[in-house]
Amino acid sequence: MNTDFIPPQSDLNIRLARVQQLLKAAGGDAALISTDVNIYYLTGIVFAGYIYLPAEGEPLWFVRRPSDLKGERVISNRKPEDIPTALKKRNIPVPETLFWETDQITHNEFLRLEAALHPARTGNMTSLLRKARMIKTPWEIEQFRFSAAKHAEVYGLVPSLFRKGMTEIAFQIEIERVMRKNGSIGMFRTFGANMNIFMGSLLSGKNADTPSPFDFALGGRGIHPCLPIGASDDLIAEGSTVIIDFTGNFTAYMSDMSRVYSFGKLPEIAYRAHQVSVDMHCRLMEETKPGTACSDIYNRMFDIAGKSGFATNYMGFSQQAKFVGHGVGLDINEPPVLTERSNDLLQPGMVVAFEPKFVLPDIGAVGIENTYLVTDSGLEKLTVCEEGIIELAKNG
Amino acid sequence: MNTDFIPPQSDLNIRLARVQQLLKAAGGDAALISTDVNIYYLTGIVFAGYIYLPAEGEPLWFVRRPSDLKGERVISNRKPEDIPTALKKRNIPVPETLFWETDQITHNEFLRLEAALHPARTGNMTSLLRKARMIKTPWEIEQFRFSAAKHAEVYGLVPSLFRKGMTEIAFQIEIERVMRKNGSIGMFRTFGANMNIFMGSLLSGKNADTPSPFDFALGGRGIHPCLPIGASDDLIAEGSTVIIDFTGNFTAYMSDMSRVYSFGKLPEIAYRAHQVSVDMHCRLMEETKPGTACSDIYNRMFDIAGKSGFATNYMGFSQQAKFVGHGVGLDINEPPVLTERSNDLLQPGMVVAFEPKFVLPDIGAVGIENTYLVTDSGLEKLTVCEEGIIELAKNG
Repeated sequence: MNTDFIPPQSDLNIRLARVQQLLKAAGGDAALISTDVNIYYLTGIVFAGYIYLPAEGEPLWFVRRPSDLKGERVISNRKPEDIPTALKKRNIPVPETLFWETDQITHNEFLRLEAALHPARTGNMTSLLRKARMIKTPWEIEQFRFSAAKHAEVYGLVPSLFRKGMTEIAFQIEIERVMRKNGSIGMFRTFGANMNIFMGSLLSGKNADTPSPFDFALGGRGIHPCLPIGASDDLIAEGSTVIIDFTGNFTAYMSDMSRVYSFGKLPEIAYRAHQVSVDMHCRLMEETKPGTACSDIYNRMFDIAGKSGFATNYMGFSQQAKFVGHGVGLDINEPPVLTERSNDLLQPGMVVAFEPKFVLPDIGAVGIENTYLVTDSGLEKLTVCEEGIIELAKNG
Repeated sequence: MNTDFIPPQSDLNIRLARVQQLLKAAGGDAALISTDVNIYYLTGIVFAGYIYLPAEGEPLWFVRRPSDLKGERVISNRKPEDIPTALKKRNIPVPETLFWETDQITHNEFLRLEAALHPARTGNMTSLLRKARMIKTPWEIEQFRFSAAKHAEVYGLVPSLFRKGMTEIAFQIEIERVMRKNGSIGMFRTFGANMNIFMGSLLSGKNADTPSPFDFALGGRGIHPCLPIGASDDLIAEGSTVIIDFTGNFTAYMSDMSRVYSFGKLPEIAYRAHQVSVDMHCRLMEETKPGTACSDIYNRMFDIAGKSGFATNYMGFSQQAKFVGHGVGLDINEPPVLTERSNDLLQPGMVVAFEPKFVLPDIGAVGIENTYLVTDSGLEKLTVCEEGIIELAKNG
């Protein structure tokens, strides 16, 4: 195991302190945390069980599996009903106001925990954890840098994987393999329902305009009706774009990046629309600093799209997405969201993907996505990689 | 799109009738269904929104996305708060007893739906749907046959992918690619928390004994602490087994199959333990018929394992799984579960994976997993593929 992937205790302490401060401010005595994503966030490992997190003091780990996890704060635990007894043994009163991940645990899990611990009041730990996770720690930022650099490396290899006569899915599979060979963890964590996809999206020609049930920027038909998103078995036709939007999951912290390739020359309109997206990224870099409102970014970009002549193609054609960017982290869709109604202001330590795209029916999608770190002075681009449309050689 | 993947209306009608019968028997007036897995089960497609399913009569589809989904029963819908008005427009009273997927939707989704529809009573639609889905329809069974045949075809290619000097993860990546090239949908649906894995598991030597937080038969360290399961970056050593357990997700209905390969000759104990598993499968085929209790199967197999001399290796060594098989379908872990405390009896139309495995520290895991269809007279093996330990040639 690469120990670089294990966060130092000092970094975990920053997170713990931030989460405990939010919990205390919200009036919580303690939280019980059971989702693997938040257990990983707070401990650097994954176990099945619960973190018992008091608003002040040391957390306890109630662990069902793995059987070999030992340590001072580890309490072997088969079921939540045993937690009150374990707390009493340690002279910890069962908390009156208990927070749990009510945007993540099922209703029946909630009822079971409530019956086991019967707190007087409960609160939403999901929203506090998402708020804490929105501001990345120094170690987390290094994980993004590592992911983004690998991500750029793999995208550099993409043209060499193309062969004339390939279907979208055939091209996608070769990219998946190179992603994995370069260390992609494979898993694609998303928050909330209706966010299924497998590793990433590759869309060409008219499939880029296929509406999807899922809440991503673009759709696509997929290869099976049970997962209607992304690459299809359509042949990649000459004169169409290929947009690639994979997750840079080379660490637990994902960069998000889209790039556009062309099979042969494209109609001139495609290069113009693509340039609008590239220009939007330049504007974003120039005009954004800590304190910039996410809704302002959305609205300014919406205006630019409108004036560009590509308003009907912006963020989809048949179905248009209502956001132009989103926070990334352990989930691909974290706060803040760059949308019309956001109340969030950008803050140093946020990591945000910005993805203005245009769908040109029959040609395909154009536009790029980059992941940016909000610094004290502005934005730092993490996904540094050729941004123009790259023509694919007609190999093979 | 391959139209063979679209279920005929007659088959959907069987499912609808079964689910409505269960709903009526449980005292429900209607159900609101929002998970993609159950929407796919009832419609053959996936959309973001809700199925409004009355205990009698035609369902309505409240659809948020995709925008191009049209039809007689489709009602465009932005949020659940709009559902009561839409029902009233159609002279449908808001139901008094409303079932929803309380083992799948989050607590906060439940609260939102409750506030929007304020039923007098609510019930658990997850358990009714899992009960209905447990008995597969004729079309579903054909989907399993298709998946299982492809699954066997890919496993036949596995030896050709091995090269001396490979790590577990390098071997796994080549299998992933061949799975995908043969039509694997990629996505691996699981039910419940703590069931993460990427595509499948490949374990060799001592990594087969690494306890994992996840509730699968075997563990493994994985390549990153945020997903501690399956293949690691350990070299595959001579004298060790390689056990492969991928999901046959070539349709939405997944077959489950494990096979064992060896790099060079193994100690004799490995072949003996493997034969115990193969014999268990023969016993299962001989002794099982509709009406057999799942707990009986578990207990009989536990006894055989005990008498074989491999009790301490059965279903893990450092951490032992408490089941020896499970239903499969749209999720890889469906009822019934072959466990000590199951109350289920096998019924025709169930599809069950049986996976008696033995972990031999330092050598690796042995034993096979097959997927069986319960027929009127017994079991039919769906995953037909060489069952002995296959020695990998030292290519390259």
